Amino acid sequence: MTLDSLETPVLTVDLDAVERNVARMQAYCEKHGLALRPHIKTHKSPAIARMQLQHGAHGVTCQKLGEAEVMAAAGIGSILVTFPLVGVRKAERAVELAQIVQLTLVGDSSIVAENLSAAFARAGQVVDFLVECDTGLGRTGVQTPEEAATLARLVDSLPGLRFGGLMTYPTVPESGPWLQAACEAIESGGLHVGCVSGGGGLPTFYSSHEVETITEIRPGTYAYGDRSYFAEGAMMLADCALRVRATVVSRPTENRAIIDAGSKTLSNDPVDAADESGYGLIVEYPQALIYTLSEEHGHVDVKCCADKPAIGEVITILPNHACGTVNLHDEVVIHKNGQHVARWPVTARGKVA
Amino acid sequence: MTLDSLETPVLTVDLDAVERNVARMQAYCEKHGLALRPHIKTHKSPAIARMQLQHGAHGVTCQKLGEAEVMAAAGIGSILVTFPLVGVRKAERAVELAQIVQLTLVGDSSIVAENLSAAFARAGQVVDFLVECDTGLGRTGVQTPEEAATLARLVDSLPGLRFGGLMTYPTVPESGPWLQAACEAIESGGLHVGCVSGGGGLPTFYSSHEVETITEIRPGTYAYGDRSYFAEGAMMLADCALRVRATVVSRPTENRAIIDAGSKTLSNDPVDAADESGYGLIVEYPQALIYTLSEEHGHVDVKCCADKPAIGEVITILPNHACGTVNLHDEVVIHKNGQHVARWPVTARGKVA
Repeated sequence: MTLDSLETPVLTVDLDAVERNVARMQAYCEKHGLALRPHIKTHKSPAIARMQLQHGAHGVTCQKLGEAEVMAAAGIGSILVTFPLVGVRKAERAVELAQIVQLTLVGDSSIVAENLSAAFARAGQVVDFLVECDTGLGRTGVQTPEEAATLARLVDSLPGLRFGGLMTYPTVPESGPWLQAACEAIESGGLHVGCVSGGGGLPTFYSSHEVETITEIRPGTYAYGDRSYFAEGAMMLADCALRVRATVVSRPTENRAIIDAGSKTLSNDPVDAADESGYGLIVEYPQALIYTLSEEHGHVDVKCCADKPAIGEVITILPNHACGTVNLHDEVVIHKNGQHVARWPVTARGKVA
Repeated sequence: MTLDSLETPVLTVDLDAVERNVARMQAYCEKHGLALRPHIKTHKSPAIARMQLQHGAHGVTCQKLGEAEVMAAAGIGSILVTFPLVGVRKAERAVELAQIVQLTLVGDSSIVAENLSAAFARAGQVVDFLVECDTGLGRTGVQTPEEAATLARLVDSLPGLRFGGLMTYPTVPESGPWLQAACEAIESGGLHVGCVSGGGGLPTFYSSHEVETITEIRPGTYAYGDRSYFAEGAMMLADCALRVRATVVSRPTENRAIIDAGSKTLSNDPVDAADESGYGLIVEYPQALIYTLSEEHGHVDVKCCADKPAIGEVITILPNHACGTVNLHDEVVIHKNGQHVARWPVTARGKVA
């Protein structure tokens, strides 16, 4: 069965490209002595996670506990949850999870540390805890190396927690001095910083090793690639594994084509690259611009296309942001060499809690 | 069980508010002699669709065939699919669907009409077909009343199709003369325009009757409401039934709060109202601004809040765009008077094809 026989819209994944991407990132990490802990938020698929582990990743990263539960149920043995777990019920679920996987948690406040400590101590368990550091993004994370050291000391003093090191996202050049200062402040107090988890994401894709403090990276999008990575020159088009196959369903005017993929198929995520706009790259018509999305219609300006697509023509779109697009779909069609191989569920999709 | 016992993030629906909204729209339609065919794209729930029918709606509208199949399987008897069906497989699925429901289809080209005609004629069936008209949006639809008349004549001549009338979206003031001219051009040729389906959406919510040609309207968002409808003054806050319950998980700085709802929970859909920005209204902190979304983190500026939310506090967010938010969730928690009543699946979610 070939891809041409698929109804549209449909999300497809080139498995050969994924294998190349996974092998390349693993080789990069081994060359630079970095541990690789891929973020599953991009694919949300236990099968792709297992491929990453088979190539040498030492565990996976999940953003939500619900995703981690899916990965644990699929037999993944080592999971880092990079989101602060707040509330008794979340802490209790983490305790349950830690009974079947090697779990590492994070936090940037005493409230989160004490919440987890109480639940793990009550269960007679101990869990690794990384202090999240804001080294430039302005999202979660303690704000200074001194705050990192203070929270590390608290974690070390709490029952049920074992201070494991530091975590940050993304890694930018200024992350290096920040993390170095935090490590020194913590180690001067006698604590050991076992892990400094960073990296992942543009623009430091494949240059995370330049921040020397880092021991582990957590890239996600590299497995599939997307238009943002392609437009930034970080990945080649042939290595971008993801496509939305869509059909031209209307040509109401000379310069307008309407396709059967809108924001509920592509997502409204913008392209994260300078000088680019629109909602995806149409591979067969790179001069075309998907200038707006209705929920189920993509509005395409084809005035710059020498040949213009006809009603019924199937086009393939490289989405702006892999993670946002995959998250809309219950399954992906996996192919090798254009042959439709299988439909794989996006198992961790929708596990927002 | 109360809503306070729910883990976050979670999407909740106030069923009493939905009933009020459904009853109000039905009363509006009956007052003005309009048939009501609600669009299910907002709720994607057979249970809410049945409520709309029980109040007097004469059928439902679906955007995709996959949604229509879900509604048919739930026993909904009359379905309009307002999306051009292209390709043999889509036409064959429409034939199957028409064997169990009263089906109406649309199109804006001879290609779509001939595709459907071939499949229905082969099956010995006849289906109602509306000519889609672009009366101002600039999306799908024939471009002039003359084109509408030409396509209507073609539809009338094709086996397997029965010309049923016209369809447009949204209805704007200029839609009136456009549709009137199309009706006259079609009826002067001896054809009868049985249905003129329009309305739905801002800004003509509750003023669709002013476009006199229209016989049926297809609103969707009215059942749940959202921040765009509230900000435009089209609905009261108490009638906006949808909330995302989220927890403050980090307070890294005095003016920044981070919540556990990002673009994969709220959607990146913008607010469709003048002078409004951000990614949802925090009901308890209307001065707060959700200024950016990561995939799982909402970034909130709380500098204008007199009291600022603490870590662990649960807040409720009115999403910018109900349809985009609901589409991210596998289920909604239904409540009456703050009591958690049930979890209802968003059954037609992800049925993009």
